[in-house]
Amino acid sequence: MFKLDSRLHNDTFFVCDLTLCRVLLMNDRQFPWLILVPMRNDIAEIIDLSEHEQQTLLKESAKVSKVMQQVFAPYKLNVGALGNVVRQLHVHHVARFETDVAWPKPVWGNQAAIAYEDTKASEILSTLKQALCE
Amino acid sequence: MFKLDSRLHNDTFFVCDLTLCRVLLMNDRQFPWLILVPMRNDIAEIIDLSEHEQQTLLKESAKVSKVMQQVFAPYKLNVGALGNVVRQLHVHHVARFETDVAWPKPVWGNQAAIAYEDTKASEILSTLKQALCE
Repeated sequence: MFKLDSRLHNDTFFVCDLTLCRVLLMNDRQFPWLILVPMRNDIAEIIDLSEHEQQTLLKESAKVSKVMQQVFAPYKLNVGALGNVVRQLHVHHVARFETDVAWPKPVWGNQAAIAYEDTKASEILSTLKQALCE
Repeated sequence: MFKLDSRLHNDTFFVCDLTLCRVLLMNDRQFPWLILVPMRNDIAEIIDLSEHEQQTLLKESAKVSKVMQQVFAPYKLNVGALGNVVRQLHVHHVARFETDVAWPKPVWGNQAAIAYEDTKASEILSTLKQALCE
Protein backbone atom coordinates (compact mmCIF):
# COMPACT_ATOMS: atom_id res chain seq x y z
CA MET A 1 0.00 0.00 0.00
CA PHE A 2 1.25 3.45 -0.90
CA LYS A 3 2.43 5.45 2.11
CA LEU A 4 2.67 9.23 1.85
CA ASP A 5 5.42 10.96 3.82
CA SER A 6 3.92 12.51 6.97
CA ARG A 7 5.39 15.95 6.29
CA LEU A 8 3.88 16.05 2.80
CA HIS A 9 0.59 14.92 4.34
CA ASN A 10 0.64 17.63 6.99
CA ASP A 11 1.65 20.51 4.69
CA THR A 12 -0.89 19.90 1.92
CA PHE A 13 -4.48 19.32 0.86
CA PHE A 14 -5.41 16.19 -1.14
CA VAL A 15 -6.60 17.02 -4.67
CA CYS A 16 -6.93 13.61 -6.35
CA ASP A 17 -5.07 10.52 -7.56
CA LEU A 18 -4.10 10.35 -11.23
CA THR A 19 -2.83 7.11 -12.81
CA LEU A 20 0.63 7.30 -11.24
CA CYS A 21 0.67 10.34 -9.00
CA ARG A 22 -1.18 11.70 -6.03
CA VAL A 23 -1.85 15.41 -6.54
CA LEU A 24 -1.48 17.65 -3.49
CA LEU A 25 -2.05 21.40 -3.01
CA MET A 26 0.54 23.02 -0.76
CA ASN A 27 -1.21 24.85 2.07
CA ASP A 28 0.59 28.11 1.39
CA ARG A 29 -1.50 30.98 0.11
CA GLN A 30 1.63 32.86 -1.02
CA PHE A 31 1.97 30.64 -4.12
CA PRO A 32 -0.30 28.40 -6.21
CA TRP A 33 1.72 25.23 -5.61
CA LEU A 34 0.88 21.67 -6.60
CA ILE A 35 2.92 18.59 -5.78
CA LEU A 36 2.88 15.31 -7.71
CA VAL A 37 3.84 12.25 -5.67
CA PRO A 38 4.24 9.00 -7.63
CA MET A 39 2.31 6.36 -5.66
CA ARG A 40 5.29 4.05 -5.30
CA ASN A 41 7.10 3.35 -2.05
CA ASP A 42 10.84 3.73 -1.43
CA ILE A 43 11.52 5.93 -4.46
CA ALA A 44 13.72 9.02 -4.10
CA GLU A 45 14.80 9.92 -7.64
CA ILE A 46 12.91 10.20 -10.93
CA ILE A 47 15.32 7.63 -12.38
CA ASP A 48 14.31 5.16 -9.65
CA LEU A 49 10.97 4.84 -11.49
CA SER A 50 10.64 2.46 -14.45
CA GLU A 51 10.88 4.06 -17.90
CA HIS A 52 7.15 3.66 -18.38
CA GLU A 53 6.45 5.29 -15.02
CA GLN A 54 8.80 8.16 -15.91
CA GLN A 55 6.79 8.76 -19.08
CA THR A 56 3.55 8.75 -17.10
CA LEU A 57 5.07 11.20 -14.62
CA LEU A 58 6.01 13.47 -17.54
CA LYS A 59 2.47 13.35 -18.92
CA GLU A 60 0.88 14.04 -15.54
CA SER A 61 3.36 16.87 -14.93
CA ALA A 62 2.42 18.38 -18.30
CA LYS A 63 -1.28 18.09 -17.45
CA VAL A 64 -0.76 19.81 -14.10
CA SER A 65 1.39 22.51 -15.72
CA LYS A 66 -1.27 23.28 -18.33
CA VAL A 67 -4.02 23.46 -15.73
CA MET A 68 -1.90 25.79 -13.58
CA GLN A 69 -1.31 28.08 -16.56
CA GLN A 70 -5.05 28.15 -17.28
CA VAL A 71 -6.18 28.65 -13.70
CA PHE A 72 -3.47 30.95 -12.33
CA ALA A 73 -1.88 32.56 -15.45
CA PRO A 74 1.61 32.76 -13.92
CA TYR A 75 4.60 34.59 -15.38
CA LYS A 76 6.66 31.39 -15.00
CA LEU A 77 6.25 27.85 -13.74
CA ASN A 78 8.89 26.37 -11.45
CA VAL A 79 9.00 22.59 -11.78
CA GLY A 80 11.41 20.68 -9.59
CA ALA A 81 12.23 17.45 -7.80
CA LEU A 82 14.55 18.31 -4.91
CA GLY A 83 13.96 16.02 -1.94
CA ASN A 84 16.62 17.38 0.39
CA VAL A 85 14.19 17.54 3.30
CA VAL A 86 11.51 15.00 2.33
CA ARG A 87 13.26 12.14 0.56
CA GLN A 88 10.12 10.52 -0.91
CA LEU A 89 10.03 11.47 -4.62
CA HIS A 90 7.74 14.45 -5.18
CA VAL A 91 7.68 16.97 -7.99
CA HIS A 92 6.85 20.59 -7.19
CA HIS A 93 4.87 22.75 -9.62
CA VAL A 94 4.81 26.35 -8.49
CA ALA A 95 3.09 29.22 -10.30
CA ARG A 96 5.41 32.21 -10.00
CA PHE A 97 4.73 35.90 -10.41
CA GLU A 98 7.15 38.82 -10.54
CA THR A 99 5.16 40.25 -7.62
CA ASP A 100 5.34 37.20 -5.32
CA VAL A 101 7.20 37.38 -1.99
CA ALA A 102 10.12 35.18 -3.03
CA TRP A 103 10.66 36.45 -6.59
CA PRO A 104 13.07 35.79 -8.29
CA LYS A 105 14.40 33.30 -5.74
CA PRO A 106 13.04 29.77 -5.49
CA VAL A 107 10.18 29.23 -3.04
CA TRP A 108 11.93 26.40 -1.19
CA GLY A 109 13.61 27.30 2.06
CA ASN A 110 13.02 31.03 1.69
CA GLN A 111 9.93 31.82 3.75
CA ALA A 112 7.48 30.12 6.10
CA ALA A 113 4.19 28.96 4.64
CA ILE A 114 1.04 30.96 5.33
CA ALA A 115 -2.06 28.76 5.45
CA TYR A 116 -5.13 29.40 3.28
CA GLU A 117 -8.37 30.53 4.83
CA ASP A 118 -10.83 27.60 4.74
CA THR A 119 -13.19 29.11 2.19
CA LYS A 120 -10.34 30.05 -0.16
CA ALA A 121 -8.82 26.58 0.07
CA SER A 122 -12.20 24.99 -0.71
CA GLU A 123 -12.65 27.25 -3.70
CA ILE A 124 -9.22 26.48 -5.19
CA LEU A 125 -9.56 22.76 -4.51
CA SER A 126 -12.93 22.72 -6.25
CA THR A 127 -11.48 24.48 -9.31
CA LEU A 128 -8.46 22.17 -9.45
CA LYS A 129 -10.52 19.00 -9.02
CA GLN A 130 -12.76 20.01 -11.87
CA ALA A 131 -9.83 20.81 -14.17
CA LEU A 132 -7.54 17.92 -13.25
CA CYS A 133 -9.50 15.00 -11.91
CA GLU A 134 -12.61 14.50 -14.01
CA MET B 1 20.04 28.63 -35.58
CA PHE B 2 19.93 27.85 -31.89
CA LYS B 3 20.92 30.77 -29.69
CA LEU B 4 22.05 30.15 -26.12
CA ASP B 5 21.20 32.77 -23.51
CA SER B 6 24.30 34.88 -22.82
CA ARG B 7 24.11 34.37 -19.06
CA LEU B 8 24.00 30.60 -19.44
CA HIS B 9 26.93 30.90 -21.84
CA ASN B 10 28.99 32.99 -19.44
CA ASP B 11 28.32 30.90 -16.32
CA THR B 12 29.10 27.48 -17.79
CA PHE B 13 31.44 25.21 -19.72
CA PHE B 14 30.22 23.45 -22.86
CA VAL B 15 30.10 19.65 -22.45
CA CYS B 16 28.42 18.43 -25.65
CA ASP B 17 25.21 18.41 -27.68
CA LEU B 18 22.86 15.44 -27.31
CA THR B 19 19.93 14.89 -29.70
CA LEU B 20 17.75 17.62 -28.21
CA CYS B 21 19.77 19.29 -25.49
CA ARG B 22 23.03 21.14 -25.11
CA VAL B 23 24.81 19.95 -21.96
CA LEU B 24 26.57 22.59 -19.87
CA LEU B 25 28.66 22.34 -16.69
CA MET B 26 28.03 25.17 -14.25
CA ASN B 27 31.31 26.88 -13.39
CA ASP B 28 30.79 26.50 -9.64
CA ARG B 29 33.11 24.17 -7.81
CA GLN B 30 30.77 24.08 -4.80
CA PHE B 31 28.40 21.65 -6.58
CA PRO B 32 28.59 19.17 -9.45
CA TRP B 33 25.94 20.90 -11.55
CA LEU B 34 24.87 20.12 -15.13
CA ILE B 35 22.34 22.06 -17.16
CA LEU B 36 20.35 20.70 -20.10
CA VAL B 37 19.19 23.31 -22.62
CA PRO B 38 16.83 22.10 -25.34
CA MET B 39 18.21 23.50 -28.60
CA ARG B 40 15.00 25.27 -29.54
CA ASN B 41 14.53 29.02 -29.57
CA ASP B 42 11.81 30.96 -27.75
CA ILE B 43 10.86 28.17 -25.36
CA ALA B 44 10.35 28.93 -21.65
CA GLU B 45 8.37 26.00 -20.27
CA ILE B 46 8.73 22.22 -20.63
CA ILE B 47 5.16 22.15 -21.96
CA ASP B 48 6.17 24.57 -24.74
CA LEU B 49 8.09 21.65 -26.30
CA SER B 50 6.26 19.12 -28.50
CA GLU B 51 5.29 15.85 -26.81
CA HIS B 52 8.07 14.06 -28.65
CA GLU B 53 10.62 16.65 -27.56
CA GLN B 54 9.39 16.36 -23.97
CA GLN B 55 10.02 12.61 -24.11
CA THR B 56 13.51 13.20 -25.48
CA LEU B 57 14.19 15.73 -22.73
CA LEU B 58 13.08 13.12 -20.17
CA LYS B 59 15.45 10.52 -21.64
CA GLU B 60 18.39 12.93 -21.77
CA SER B 61 17.64 14.07 -18.22
CA ALA B 62 17.66 10.43 -17.08
CA LYS B 63 20.97 9.84 -18.84
CA VAL B 64 22.54 12.89 -17.20
CA SER B 65 21.12 11.87 -13.80
CA LYS B 66 22.58 8.37 -14.06
CA VAL B 67 25.99 9.68 -15.10
CA MET B 68 25.97 12.15 -12.20
CA GLN B 69 25.14 9.35 -9.76
CA GLN B 70 28.00 7.25 -11.16
CA VAL B 71 30.57 10.04 -11.29
CA PHE B 72 29.74 12.04 -8.15
CA ALA B 73 27.79 9.57 -5.93
CA PRO B 74 25.57 12.28 -4.41
CA TYR B 75 23.19 11.86 -1.47
CA LYS B 76 20.42 13.42 -3.60
CA LEU B 77 19.90 14.85 -7.06
CA ASN B 78 18.06 18.14 -7.44
CA VAL B 79 16.38 18.36 -10.84
CA GLY B 80 14.54 21.53 -11.71
CA ALA B 81 13.33 23.89 -14.41
CA LEU B 82 12.88 27.31 -12.81
CA GLY B 83 13.70 30.10 -15.25
CA ASN B 84 12.92 33.08 -13.02
CA VAL B 85 16.19 34.80 -13.95
CA VAL B 86 17.06 33.22 -17.32
CA ARG B 87 13.80 32.63 -19.17
CA GLN B 88 15.21 30.28 -21.86
CA LEU B 89 14.16 26.73 -20.88
CA HIS B 90 16.97 24.96 -19.05
CA VAL B 91 16.87 22.05 -16.65
CA HIS B 92 19.25 22.00 -13.72
CA HIS B 93 20.75 18.74 -12.44
CA VAL B 94 22.64 19.30 -9.21
CA ALA B 95 24.44 16.62 -7.19
CA ARG B 96 23.77 17.39 -3.53
CA PHE B 97 25.58 16.28 -0.41
CA GLU B 98 24.63 16.70 3.23
CA THR B 99 28.00 18.44 3.63
CA ASP B 100 27.61 21.01 0.81
CA VAL B 101 27.46 24.74 1.61
CA ALA B 102 23.77 25.19 0.79
CA TRP B 103 22.38 21.97 2.31
CA PRO B 104 19.43 21.41 2.73
CA LYS B 105 18.40 24.56 0.90
CA PRO B 106 18.28 24.75 -2.90
CA VAL B 107 21.45 25.96 -4.62
CA TRP B 108 19.66 28.69 -6.58
CA GLY B 109 19.90 32.21 -5.21
CA ASN B 110 21.66 31.15 -2.01
CA GLN B 111 25.38 31.76 -2.60
CA ALA B 112 27.71 33.19 -5.22
CA ALA B 113 29.42 30.74 -7.57
CA ILE B 114 33.10 29.91 -7.01
CA ALA B 115 34.87 29.13 -10.29
CA TYR B 116 36.80 25.88 -10.84
CA GLU B 117 40.56 25.93 -11.16
CA ASP B 118 41.43 25.27 -14.82
CA THR B 119 42.96 21.83 -14.28
CA LYS B 120 40.00 20.68 -12.19
CA ALA B 121 37.50 21.92 -14.78
CA SER B 122 39.39 20.10 -17.56
CA GLU B 123 39.44 16.90 -15.53
CA ILE B 124 35.69 16.95 -14.81
CA LEU B 125 34.83 17.93 -18.39
CA SER B 126 36.91 15.06 -19.69
CA THR B 127 35.16 12.58 -17.39
CA LEU B 128 31.71 13.90 -18.31
CA LYS B 129 32.39 13.91 -22.04
CA GLN B 130 33.50 10.31 -21.89
CA ALA B 131 30.43 9.23 -19.91
CA LEU B 132 27.80 11.31 -21.68
CA CYS B 133 28.85 12.17 -25.18
CA GLU B 134 30.43 9.14 -26.84
